[in-house]
Amino acid sequence: MQIRIGIYGYGNLGKGVESAIRQNEDMTLAAVFTRRDPGSLNIATPGVPVYAAQDAAAHKDEIDVLILCGGSATDLPVQTPKMAEYFNVVDSFDTHANIPDHFAAVDEQAKRNGKIALISVGWDPGMFSLNRMYANAVLPEGSDYTFWGRGVSQGHSDAIRRIEGVEDAKQYTVPVEAALEEVRRGNNPVLTTRQKHTRECFVVAKEGADKARIEREIKEMPNYFADYDTTVHFISAEELKRDHSKINHGGFVIRSGKTGLNKENRAVIEYSLKLDSNPEFTASVIVAYARAAYRLYRQGECGCKTVFDIAPALLSRLSASQLRATML
Amino acid sequence: MQIRIGIYGYGNLGKGVESAIRQNEDMTLAAVFTRRDPGSLNIATPGVPVYAAQDAAAHKDEIDVLILCGGSATDLPVQTPKMAEYFNVVDSFDTHANIPDHFAAVDEQAKRNGKIALISVGWDPGMFSLNRMYANAVLPEGSDYTFWGRGVSQGHSDAIRRIEGVEDAKQYTVPVEAALEEVRRGNNPVLTTRQKHTRECFVVAKEGADKARIEREIKEMPNYFADYDTTVHFISAEELKRDHSKINHGGFVIRSGKTGLNKENRAVIEYSLKLDSNPEFTASVIVAYARAAYRLYRQGECGCKTVFDIAPALLSRLSASQLRATML
Repeated sequence: MQIRIGIYGYGNLGKGVESAIRQNEDMTLAAVFTRRDPGSLNIATPGVPVYAAQDAAAHKDEIDVLILCGGSATDLPVQTPKMAEYFNVVDSFDTHANIPDHFAAVDEQAKRNGKIALISVGWDPGMFSLNRMYANAVLPEGSDYTFWGRGVSQGHSDAIRRIEGVEDAKQYTVPVEAALEEVRRGNNPVLTTRQKHTRECFVVAKEGADKARIEREIKEMPNYFADYDTTVHFISAEELKRDHSKINHGGFVIRSGKTGLNKENRAVIEYSLKLDSNPEFTASVIVAYARAAYRLYRQGECGCKTVFDIAPALLSRLSASQLRATML
Repeated sequence: MQIRIGIYGYGNLGKGVESAIRQNEDMTLAAVFTRRDPGSLNIATPGVPVYAAQDAAAHKDEIDVLILCGGSATDLPVQTPKMAEYFNVVDSFDTHANIPDHFAAVDEQAKRNGKIALISVGWDPGMFSLNRMYANAVLPEGSDYTFWGRGVSQGHSDAIRRIEGVEDAKQYTVPVEAALEEVRRGNNPVLTTRQKHTRECFVVAKEGADKARIEREIKEMPNYFADYDTTVHFISAEELKRDHSKINHGGFVIRSGKTGLNKENRAVIEYSLKLDSNPEFTASVIVAYARAAYRLYRQGECGCKTVFDIAPALLSRLSASQLRATML
């Protein structure tokens, strides 16, 4: 029997979940829920019903795990606890500072209704968190470094688009190679914001706009750009579409620690991702954790959990003995 | 109350465990067991008793987790099941092909005696296995690559030392940078043995030995060197001691997969280690898993488990809420 997955919210992440399910034979897409008019949605998988988000509860018996694909700012804080009343759920809540509150709200609903909820699943939070945690457990004395990129920051791209005279824009966050190398050598440098990342902007200016002013406004924008070395390239709308349409991303989690009686030996653990599609990879992680959610529910467990609570084997289609024979 | 750790076998790995315990405040070294004369052993931690290995069972109430630090060839297949009669145990059994048999033997003893046993803990098997497994679960369609090095291979160093005219030798396994780069680009190359690693040998020849013959014998040695591009450097005993005394190692686990409805996007996951001391890092991993073994035992669980079965949070000194607040 296949695990019946529901997608709640059909944006980039929801579409990524739809494609990830195709790579997992033990799963099937059972339904898509949308806040738009269900009749207006053309999903990629034939024969799968599209329902109105407000009617989700009525379909609770058709779904084993509901994947919440909304945003962390306003959608998930409401949707995840609400849907945990009816469904086992997985979300990718990524506002790090608000995770404890979100956890508490979801945990209460999930426990009350005997459901499993996995929150903050993806790559950061998610796979990066796991690697921070494993590396800290293994090397208790050391320093942590997280670098992001080279990749598209939606927030920074939006900030540029709000500048007068800007037609469209794409911003890349770029880790500074020299800083990465210094960290990899185990030298435990103390790095400023400017030393860790640069920002590279591709901007389409409106006809007749003052490019010098636009560039200055970008580079001086507090929080977003002022603390970074920023470069601005003006390009045509065609070039933007041709060369900058991918939502690529990635990054590096490094822990640099010491071993030995007198801490005389260095040990560096590095985890990195290079992703052509940020939302599709996030979705791929979520789908693996949906399998774990399903299994935990079948074992009679309930409540809210994170990647830290999930034994790795629960993510895999392979049995415990297959895993030992092929992956250990 | 601290977790009382016993070390069974005081070689490089046992010494690594001793130093790793010092970085974990919730643990204490309770005893060392040795097959040598206990009176002849000078361990680094004052006040800790050294007992004869054959008397270990008599001390079972003094130890929460016994860490087995013997070799995989002949020690652990006997010691781990035997000691699981009396202790919760962790070993670093690393003969990949024999893991299923070892698991079965240890599982039977651990279950019969209500103990927890964790086998094949370290970095390969261990952290590398975890990363292979996570990456396969997240990217079901893709290719796996493991590269080892740059690091010392004890087996290859020993093989050189057995050649006539060789006084001493150290062999480094070196990943081929061009192959690594090709894999990182997501091109899923099919790589031969020769294309993945080279072998670099530092040899001290005996006085008057025929160096040309030694070099030829090394390079033509089947299994060990014949399938690799091998370089041989003759150096003095002083140079070997000065420049090649560390037992450094490391490596890379890479999974290169696809995402997207039509698999049009690449995703590359890379995990790597750079270690000045292979046994000390292995010991650091084992010690973190000893914490998990202790907790599982206190929860009333028993039987043999591997890194795949252990929820990450069990490795950390931090509470679940601390982990969510600081690492997620």
